[in-house]
Amino acid sequence: MAITLYHYWRSSASWRVRWGLELKKIPHQKIAVDLLTSAEKQKEYLEKNPSGYVPCLVVDAHPPLAESLAILEWLEENYPEPSFFQGDSFERALIRRLAETVNSGIQPLQNLDVTRKLSEDKTKQAEWIQHWVIRGLGVYEAILREAGRDRTKFSVSDQPTLADLCLIPQVYSAHRFQVDMKYFPRCQAIYEAALATPECAAARPEAFQPKA
Amino acid sequence: MAITLYHYWRSSASWRVRWGLELKKIPHQKIAVDLLTSAEKQKEYLEKNPSGYVPCLVVDAHPPLAESLAILEWLEENYPEPSFFQGDSFERALIRRLAETVNSGIQPLQNLDVTRKLSEDKTKQAEWIQHWVIRGLGVYEAILREAGRDRTKFSVSDQPTLADLCLIPQVYSAHRFQVDMKYFPRCQAIYEAALATPECAAARPEAFQPKA
Repeated sequence: MAITLYHYWRSSASWRVRWGLELKKIPHQKIAVDLLTSAEKQKEYLEKNPSGYVPCLVVDAHPPLAESLAILEWLEENYPEPSFFQGDSFERALIRRLAETVNSGIQPLQNLDVTRKLSEDKTKQAEWIQHWVIRGLGVYEAILREAGRDRTKFSVSDQPTLADLCLIPQVYSAHRFQVDMKYFPRCQAIYEAALATPECAAARPEAFQPKA
Repeated sequence: MAITLYHYWRSSASWRVRWGLELKKIPHQKIAVDLLTSAEKQKEYLEKNPSGYVPCLVVDAHPPLAESLAILEWLEENYPEPSFFQGDSFERALIRRLAETVNSGIQPLQNLDVTRKLSEDKTKQAEWIQHWVIRGLGVYEAILREAGRDRTKFSVSDQPTLADLCLIPQVYSAHRFQVDMKYFPRCQAIYEAALATPECAAARPEAFQPKA
């Protein structure tokens, strides 16, 4: 299969899919969509993904795939090993719940479109983002505690899952927006463990940041 | 299995799961969580779901399940028929993409917590919600057009899928917030078709609205 990922270096949802492609060692090419010049609002990109959001995955001549979790579930179905999941259906539900705690609970509220609509004042934008990141990461850690995952290397075990694919880019954003991660020691520890792996490191934003 | 759904009558994510349980004819009991009296912020509920969001599904003595899409995927794995999906992996990716277009693209922005944080001014809240609902439903219809689903009874075929479980409660919200649905004729037609089915009608908010 010929696979092309349309992404933006600093988009957290793009990082999820970049990391997923690395974990499963899926050959592909990447095409950058520059959100700073609103390339995602141009006809050429909107024809692939009318939401104007990145990422988007094009496989052969199939209609493009979009929404990062839908893309990751597609990758899982077509390239099962190594899996983004583990355990039984309750364990998969826990993993998907953690993923959604970031995907629908935090990320949509820090989206560029949303913060621009909220206010042109950068301070107000930052306060808004911090509020939702702090709320969301607090929930994430509470879920881990209640599920008895206090000491695992990644969110639910010693292997990365769909939950981590969402968490790590979110923690990166938390740092960017100056959230004090000392209040979220589990998330911070998982973040550091993940960045020490070659697959996550290869997918990180800096690896795709345009040269000045 | 003994299954209990914690829900709120007017929560769109609760409606998704109520409808899913009806479609698969899964015996269960329901317990109302009254968001108007902030019951979801009380210790008893937060112990089940630290996000303080509804719905939440408790199965036997297992740890509670939360996040509506994670719950629906769990239902699908444990009660495969009738399926919330259809077709091959590309078709499932389309269905999940449509579901996420609502779940992460619209619903988080109209969440009570979010609109309260935005402003105490009801007019500002309504304008904000309308903006994101109009954007999101426009994207939803564009995806259907590009996928050649112009004439199906439900979003992708003549049977309801995970996409519809998310769409119909969202269209209900659109009406509630006075979005003019004449601009979204496909979504409106799917909404009307769905409400004409006994399973969707049995799950609708009015069926669970507390008596005044």
